[in-house]
Amino acid sequence: MNVKSIIFDAYGTLFDVHSVVEKCEEFFPGKGRQISEIWRQKQLEYTWLRSLMGRYEDFWSVTNDSLVFALKSLQLDSDEEIRMSLLNQYLQLNPYPEVPDALEELKIRNLAILSNGSPDMLNTLVENAGLSHLFTAVISVDQLKIYKPFMGVYQLGVAQLGVNREDTLFITSNPWDASGAKTFGFQVAWINRFNNQFDELGVQPDIIIKSLDELKAKIR
Amino acid sequence: MNVKSIIFDAYGTLFDVHSVVEKCEEFFPGKGRQISEIWRQKQLEYTWLRSLMGRYEDFWSVTNDSLVFALKSLQLDSDEEIRMSLLNQYLQLNPYPEVPDALEELKIRNLAILSNGSPDMLNTLVENAGLSHLFTAVISVDQLKIYKPFMGVYQLGVAQLGVNREDTLFITSNPWDASGAKTFGFQVAWINRFNNQFDELGVQPDIIIKSLDELKAKIR
Repeated sequence: MNVKSIIFDAYGTLFDVHSVVEKCEEFFPGKGRQISEIWRQKQLEYTWLRSLMGRYEDFWSVTNDSLVFALKSLQLDSDEEIRMSLLNQYLQLNPYPEVPDALEELKIRNLAILSNGSPDMLNTLVENAGLSHLFTAVISVDQLKIYKPFMGVYQLGVAQLGVNREDTLFITSNPWDASGAKTFGFQVAWINRFNNQFDELGVQPDIIIKSLDELKAKIR
Repeated sequence: MNVKSIIFDAYGTLFDVHSVVEKCEEFFPGKGRQISEIWRQKQLEYTWLRSLMGRYEDFWSVTNDSLVFALKSLQLDSDEEIRMSLLNQYLQLNPYPEVPDALEELKIRNLAILSNGSPDMLNTLVENAGLSHLFTAVISVDQLKIYKPFMGVYQLGVAQLGVNREDTLFITSNPWDASGAKTFGFQVAWINRFNNQFDELGVQPDIIIKSLDELKAKIR
């Protein structure tokens, strides 16, 4: 696999979206995992639905709305203060343990992030994790006002970086994102940390890895 | 609420998509409900994702793919014969109990279906349920090769029926479909049979009913 540039998805790929569980537990003991799962599922659904409906709102807003849904659906009372405290967790998600070192090793190449996150969310997140110096660019869908896996989003990535899709490896933990990136024409690595099932969307990733550590041996 | 025409969603609204549980239980005892839930969730996701990715396949194909995912994700072995047997259940879903009589009462108005289903699937389903005579039109998104809640789909409904969106009531059990229809400009009834939580997509339905029986008293 000949790779000149690497583009990473952020949420779920470099950063653990379920880092929010602990804070959820503080406010709602015993419910943390369930809140986090509904929250993430609805967050994704709302990005797809708003894109199709032509009702774009940025990822901060969608993340708030999906949290509201999660709490209501579990009949948990909350106020603005609790929600803001949970929402702010999205600015300090933990990178997966191997991520910082693996990125250091990969950075002889052009590294970038292409994410649904709003620019403020992404920049704060990457900075809080101490990873800013590793990336040539942190690119948000917000410029286009539509979310992945709309093809224009992947096009934005190559346009902004000035790279060719064929020379670029796109890495994501999200099967639907891998399917979108592969449809666009990237080389695609699916990072499957938790032994999940890949989606049946008519395309397959080029390689499957369990952590970023495995990547170096697979590309040249 | 002044209503000249009524457009119904099909799956989950008039017809119980979880009618498939029984047949799933035959092949996979104890797993029927779980298969059905993953199957339905992925079926919807794949309609949204394929629409955004520009990889439309018809609803029969998407329903097959999502069944394949559901069985794989539960590590259940299946063959073509089992899958076809399960898939064929989609042609004979049960209407919810009150549906036939309620439609008879409503049919002094223009009644139609607007659905993600492929034309063959929809026509067979409606015919098997003995409801064909009640509808002026059964309209499939397949003409447009994109799924709800893309605005063009709702536009297709009004264009094909020759009606105004403001005079038309759109009825669906799916919160995201209600949100799409309301965004388009229909009057919208959300039929909430199972005490679900409405989605946080920035719009609300005009009325909420628990079954179609309640409708007659609410419109004129």
